[in-house]
Amino acid sequence: MKIAVIGTGQVGSVLGTRWAHNGHQIVFGSRTPTSQRVLGLVEKAGPNATATSPAQAVMDAEIVVLAIKYAAVETVIKQLGDLSGKIIIDPNNPLNGDVSGLTLGTTTSAGEEIARLIPQAPVVKAFNMTGAIGNMANPIYGDQRLSMLICGDDEQAKAVVAGLVTELGFEVVDCGPMTSARYLEPMAMLWITLAGKMGLGGNIGFRLLTR
Amino acid sequence: MKIAVIGTGQVGSVLGTRWAHNGHQIVFGSRTPTSQRVLGLVEKAGPNATATSPAQAVMDAEIVVLAIKYAAVETVIKQLGDLSGKIIIDPNNPLNGDVSGLTLGTTTSAGEEIARLIPQAPVVKAFNMTGAIGNMANPIYGDQRLSMLICGDDEQAKAVVAGLVTELGFEVVDCGPMTSARYLEPMAMLWITLAGKMGLGGNIGFRLLTR
Repeated sequence: MKIAVIGTGQVGSVLGTRWAHNGHQIVFGSRTPTSQRVLGLVEKAGPNATATSPAQAVMDAEIVVLAIKYAAVETVIKQLGDLSGKIIIDPNNPLNGDVSGLTLGTTTSAGEEIARLIPQAPVVKAFNMTGAIGNMANPIYGDQRLSMLICGDDEQAKAVVAGLVTELGFEVVDCGPMTSARYLEPMAMLWITLAGKMGLGGNIGFRLLTR
Repeated sequence: MKIAVIGTGQVGSVLGTRWAHNGHQIVFGSRTPTSQRVLGLVEKAGPNATATSPAQAVMDAEIVVLAIKYAAVETVIKQLGDLSGKIIIDPNNPLNGDVSGLTLGTTTSAGEEIARLIPQAPVVKAFNMTGAIGNMANPIYGDQRLSMLICGDDEQAKAVVAGLVTELGFEVVDCGPMTSARYLEPMAMLWITLAGKMGLGGNIGFRLLTR
């Protein structure tokens, strides 16, 4: 698939690189597409990856990943132009400045706000609730896979994103409509708290067990 | 230990019965301690269990479990009298009327509100984030244990509660201070959404994997 990864931080770098290695066409959208850092990322991602401006990156994309800071989302969405016909992946969390909590929740979520900002394209919440460097790079724990919880209001878009999640090694758990982002975003803060403050480090993650 | 279980709904019934079978002294606190239903519960829980009024139940207890509806917590706490020297276990979630969401969160939590209502005793959040009938009755999934996420500001109290959680078969995950209840309570809504709306049923639960 043609995937625009907007943002080249941890989440965007890991996802874009892995999907490029899987054979997808990746365009990283960056404010500094010719910087040494982004060129290095493109080289690591291999022949299926390029980098350009955010607005250029989305033009031919079927999938757009908003791997940017939540505070920047509204501004960046305006720069991206018409997103009709594309599927938007939202890995955002409304983290506060010192990553000690969330700035919104309970009665709304970053996912719902982003869906409101992009009424012309389906938004799927994914890749928000676990670590990028360790877990998105490799979600296999012995003979088990981490769960990736996703949600969204468009079933077809969610099925496409579920495929992109599964091919990275996660087990997809569909958590229903975008309102469930109210639960997935606090789960990110839980992961951050356990990995950081509680000292467990990045090689931890949740799996939904069934019997 | 001497444990007062206030409330005889699903959570209180399962926890009290299992701890009674483990040899703890359980007093169920109920508005109707001589009703057929509560007498049946006491009989099922066995010789280590009795039932009386909430205020009587807590008098000799070392541990008090507030297994009641969150909306009733403030009223019930007032009825319980002096709780100094006891450890309070809070399994509450601030569920709205139709269990479709939470009534508070993001910047506070039921756990923090309850801790404010009981300044004279340490409150530990536990048993809020998974199902009672299936998972608290039996948290073993094949060769794995479900995680029970707990939090609270008193390390000694948390260690005592961790013991009570572990003996039921859970693997305890300490999520830090009571502010983490802001993340554990949405996780309850997530479990409710998956078990109910998404049709997965009660035999599902989260485990924190490590590698």
